[in-house]
Amino acid sequence: MEQRAETIHLRDQLLQQLTELLRRHRRTEEAGDDHGRPPHERLKDLLDRHELDQLRHELDRLHPADVAYILEALPLDERLIVWDLVKTERDGEILLEVSDAVRETLIASMDEDELVAAAEQLDTDEIADLAPDLPREVIQDVFKSLSVEERQQLRAAMSYAEDSVGALMDFDMVEIREDVTLEVVLRYLRRLDELPDHTDQLFVVDRAAQFKGLLPVNRLLVSPPEGLVADVMVRDFVQFNPSENAQDAAAAFERYDLVSAPVVDDDGRLVGRMTVNAVVDYIRQAQDAEMLTAGGLREDEDLFASVWKSVKNRWTWLAVNLVTAFIASRVIGAFEHSIAQLVALAALMPIIAGIGGNSGNQTITMIVRALALGQISGDNARKLFIKELGVSVLNGVIWGSVVGLFAFLIYHSWALGFVMTAAMLLNLLLAGVMGVSIPLLMEKLGRDPALGSSVLITAITDSGGFFIFLGLATLFLVR
Amino acid sequence: MEQRAETIHLRDQLLQQLTELLRRHRRTEEAGDDHGRPPHERLKDLLDRHELDQLRHELDRLHPADVAYILEALPLDERLIVWDLVKTERDGEILLEVSDAVRETLIASMDEDELVAAAEQLDTDEIADLAPDLPREVIQDVFKSLSVEERQQLRAAMSYAEDSVGALMDFDMVEIREDVTLEVVLRYLRRLDELPDHTDQLFVVDRAAQFKGLLPVNRLLVSPPEGLVADVMVRDFVQFNPSENAQDAAAAFERYDLVSAPVVDDDGRLVGRMTVNAVVDYIRQAQDAEMLTAGGLREDEDLFASVWKSVKNRWTWLAVNLVTAFIASRVIGAFEHSIAQLVALAALMPIIAGIGGNSGNQTITMIVRALALGQISGDNARKLFIKELGVSVLNGVIWGSVVGLFAFLIYHSWALGFVMTAAMLLNLLLAGVMGVSIPLLMEKLGRDPALGSSVLITAITDSGGFFIFLGLATLFLVR
Repeated sequence: MEQRAETIHLRDQLLQQLTELLRRHRRTEEAGDDHGRPPHERLKDLLDRHELDQLRHELDRLHPADVAYILEALPLDERLIVWDLVKTERDGEILLEVSDAVRETLIASMDEDELVAAAEQLDTDEIADLAPDLPREVIQDVFKSLSVEERQQLRAAMSYAEDSVGALMDFDMVEIREDVTLEVVLRYLRRLDELPDHTDQLFVVDRAAQFKGLLPVNRLLVSPPEGLVADVMVRDFVQFNPSENAQDAAAAFERYDLVSAPVVDDDGRLVGRMTVNAVVDYIRQAQDAEMLTAGGLREDEDLFASVWKSVKNRWTWLAVNLVTAFIASRVIGAFEHSIAQLVALAALMPIIAGIGGNSGNQTITMIVRALALGQISGDNARKLFIKELGVSVLNGVIWGSVVGLFAFLIYHSWALGFVMTAAMLLNLLLAGVMGVSIPLLMEKLGRDPALGSSVLITAITDSGGFFIFLGLATLFLVR
Repeated sequence: MEQRAETIHLRDQLLQQLTELLRRHRRTEEAGDDHGRPPHERLKDLLDRHELDQLRHELDRLHPADVAYILEALPLDERLIVWDLVKTERDGEILLEVSDAVRETLIASMDEDELVAAAEQLDTDEIADLAPDLPREVIQDVFKSLSVEERQQLRAAMSYAEDSVGALMDFDMVEIREDVTLEVVLRYLRRLDELPDHTDQLFVVDRAAQFKGLLPVNRLLVSPPEGLVADVMVRDFVQFNPSENAQDAAAAFERYDLVSAPVVDDDGRLVGRMTVNAVVDYIRQAQDAEMLTAGGLREDEDLFASVWKSVKNRWTWLAVNLVTAFIASRVIGAFEHSIAQLVALAALMPIIAGIGGNSGNQTITMIVRALALGQISGDNARKLFIKELGVSVLNGVIWGSVVGLFAFLIYHSWALGFVMTAAMLLNLLLAGVMGVSIPLLMEKLGRDPALGSSVLITAITDSGGFFIFLGLATLFLVR
């Protein structure tokens, strides 16, 4: 793996340069009218040979992750020009680095042979990562080119669920026997050209591939060479099952500061290893997905996706919210008689609903986080409930008074002020109760409390807030 | 470091057991009325000697991160009992593992001597992590107990900003010279009892501590021992400056799959190293902080914090939202005349505001993410603008028609339906324009676009939505 100090600087410079170059030519191109071929090909014709060579050379010097970065930041036409310039044998590793949305655009621009060639450059666990995006024929061709052992690995890697340890593991393990001396191990290693990345420990297995233990490289280095592997190896370690949840494995890596860990099947056979770089990528992706979901996007969106694709990616969330908005609207509709008599209600009601939603979301955030960290058990749930009710009451008194005063100052009615205060207190109580109950209930029903809790609480505090406020007003203010 | 397969299971079992035990005794205790001493001491008296010994023994077997986990999940009184049972020499490492909020409660229960003893067990970079939470006198005492070199390290580590590489680095480096053979290096390593965690490479420095290069352990293992370090070492690597942003460093670790990396000061001297476990912790914490902020919490909240503490932690967000709600309320207030004439407006207006807010937040999420990934440059900002406008128009037509139809079906007025459709289209356009502009502007002003963008867009689409809808209605529907 290349690691260069100036690599990031180089990348940013190149991206700058590319954008400049392509913009200049795009202007020329927009003036012309050769509409026969795809725009990125026409654009490319406008770059002269020297410029193309220069670009190709610069791209060759970049780390695959940096080429991926450049591809992500370019609009589609420019992206495909750069993609054409990348050396064929690097296609595979770069496809692994780009986001799903961008990968789709790149794969769509490649023909079958190119895809097979790209996939054949990769390790079997990496092919498995790409597989869902590849056409079936390509996978079949790749499969034929593999050795028996590799086919087995690929089949295994593709058989595990997306969020399982099996999907994240790789097969780059150095395996040793326990009945040899460290001297022998050192000599064996020296015969290899290089060790797999992230080899912080060697895996001790017996002839039946049964997993026996770990020999940390650091221990190998400080121990007398004449000792036996069996005497030096670690028998007490964290191991994972391939069907285990990747999130739990990631938490274990974080908790125990692991660099690599064995993946062992139900029969005690070593089937792969998990490394910290896969964990870091996983954490990032999970985080990203969470952020997108929280923002109401169904999935990762190519920054330069078509308008139509973007609309499709966003419609679910808008539709769900529209339904809850319709319900809230009908709640208000039920009190039209009161509003007609006291129009101030219409101006004040969004305050009650809005602050209730904010407060409910604060509670939800707390609880969802505690659930994710496994901090909530049956016993302390009751305690949490009481605490959140306390927070709601205190907040209700404080903010209820503020909004009550606001209502009084604007509309000069003490009665209206009191109704405002009472409605705020009640809606914050509703928000507190629901903010604790919804995530706990979702967890109990086996659903992810991080998904949908926020929409639900907002819907409840909106409709509930309108109902409480307009209801109280109808009881006490309207004849 | 101990790593046990059954450790997680053991931990969960112990937590279960503890909760049971403590609950039983708490019942007994609530019946009594010995109010002279803090509740956790009274509680403790009720556990018999045997139970305490048992607990202590179980805790000793757990990894510090697992003890931390248990402490986080227990209410304050129970937490302090467990904390008292933990061996003094483990206090330091456990304090490092717990969250800020819980650490505060633990430190508050310890006297000065205990704190000094705990801190003295730690490495200097770890002491620096704890330092902000320790009383000044404790730090002074600890400082006195350190060697000259350690004092220098501690001073250095404490001098860097919280989110800098300097604050995350440690000093556990194995340094070697370039003019020796690998054989000598191997012999040198064998004289050490163990190597620091995450030693995937050795750091080559000259007599003046000038950093020369890296010798990956994997390369050391596969190269002939008679070769010179200078011939085998890597001169092409990613290095960091201690004042660099930790986020950039974390991105580099992720991009180049690093396990450790040198931290080199402006004069080319090796001052520390950064390791992947610090990066993983950093990523998690940053993610956590982001989630809390998005949920409207100022900081990490101890699940069992007092009601008053929780209220303080949440008030900023509620206050900000109250101000925006007041503004929206006054916008509606300006149209009270129209609402009085056509009360349906009050029931329909939250739909326009709500969907505008949702759509705006979708755009913000996209843009903030792209900015964080560095994908937006001056040139493609214009492209993005056009794309988001396109999305807004398409969404406006689709959802505008839906809400227009809804209004017609309920209120049997085509005119009202059309106003609804037009208002939705306009508010979605406003959401699109602002959704792109706000984060770009914040970035330009040097502020973090992830903070506050969401509040701002919601405020704008609320007040804006009310204004657009009620304004159009006043123009076209009201006499």
